[in-house]
Amino acid sequence: MKLYFSPLACSLAARITLHEVGASEVALVEVDPKTKRTRPDGVDFTTIHPLALVPALELDDGGLLTENAAILQYLAERFGEGRLAPEDALGRARLQQWLGFIGTELHKALFVPLLDKQASKEARAYALAKEESRLGYVDRALAGREHLLDRFSVADAYLFAILNWTAVTPVSLRRYRALADYHARLRDRPSVARAFGEERTLYAKELARRGLSFIVGESGSRS
Amino acid sequence: MKLYFSPLACSLAARITLHEVGASEVALVEVDPKTKRTRPDGVDFTTIHPLALVPALELDDGGLLTENAAILQYLAERFGEGRLAPEDALGRARLQQWLGFIGTELHKALFVPLLDKQASKEARAYALAKEESRLGYVDRALAGREHLLDRFSVADAYLFAILNWTAVTPVSLRRYRALADYHARLRDRPSVARAFGEERTLYAKELARRGLSFIVGESGSRS
Repeated sequence: MKLYFSPLACSLAARITLHEVGASEVALVEVDPKTKRTRPDGVDFTTIHPLALVPALELDDGGLLTENAAILQYLAERFGEGRLAPEDALGRARLQQWLGFIGTELHKALFVPLLDKQASKEARAYALAKEESRLGYVDRALAGREHLLDRFSVADAYLFAILNWTAVTPVSLRRYRALADYHARLRDRPSVARAFGEERTLYAKELARRGLSFIVGESGSRS
Repeated sequence: MKLYFSPLACSLAARITLHEVGASEVALVEVDPKTKRTRPDGVDFTTIHPLALVPALELDDGGLLTENAAILQYLAERFGEGRLAPEDALGRARLQQWLGFIGTELHKALFVPLLDKQASKEARAYALAKEESRLGYVDRALAGREHLLDRFSVADAYLFAILNWTAVTPVSLRRYRALADYHARLRDRPSVARAFGEERTLYAKELARRGLSFIVGESGSRS
């Protein structure tokens, strides 16, 4: 099994999940987000996934699974033994609710235009207008809680990956106290710290290949 | 159990699902998308769901389940007896992949800005720039197939609800032959025809309350 990722993209959530469950049999294949080629082999990633989006998971039968929510749930079920995703009907529904919210309202509607250097000022303003209602909603949900569900799940891994992007967008977590505390807490979780550290290193190398420096301090970012 | 919906919003997918499985014990509660009040009772929907988004499903225990992908999978599991959602791990992953793609790439990234009268010209242009890659991707996936998966699933119900919105946006299905055929085929499916007919009637009434006419012909639309 192979997981295609780009450093500090939302595919970070899958790396966290793999570390969390100790699934060392999944190979991690880096995709350069500018050239859309794998590293170090230089394979054109659009021949693997026509939309060239990460994460993408090559399954044992050679098929390709895409979409973060699907990949995270698949990895949790395949390797997690019930630790990273609830197994009862209502628990699964609550997990899917958070994966859906993070994917649609936060990732796509809020952060993608803010991270996209091609997006116009107006497209960015349109996205930013939804910040307060969406982040405020998660902030209130996390007040007095340690995780989105009763314990750490793949939804937390996804939300952590998204919240890192605040470091390079106009979104600040300072206004969302429960969310900021949650983000800081997760960063200390061993699987998260390890995954984040690995991808920060790869991200710095990616920037160096383009003659840029890694200047975003504690958090890196990526669409 | 109560399903909060607005006529021809993405909650149409849940109505199709309920008709498909014959789950008559779920009450359908209309939310006027302008006033954010239920009909006919006039309850402020933001007191039920702070983001006032439909669909929202009030569960037997009084809890509220939100997010279309979560609600559709929950309804399929609760009432569908395996008919509307695969039950094996890979089948579920493929379903979640399509629900994720439809929710993030089509619903949120492409259609929401196009349906939003408050969106600037530039925000709409930013969304529209993704049309060809995203709809082209689904079009190619549907070539020679009747459904997204091997048989009708809740992902088809969701995609049908989204494709209706082409009637009132600059997106035309004419360029996507397999997708256009799929949309036309689904419209003849009994559960879909019934749900679509019911919501067209309610949508016409909603427009009439605002002094507008229902002029979009065969398809209605809604964010």
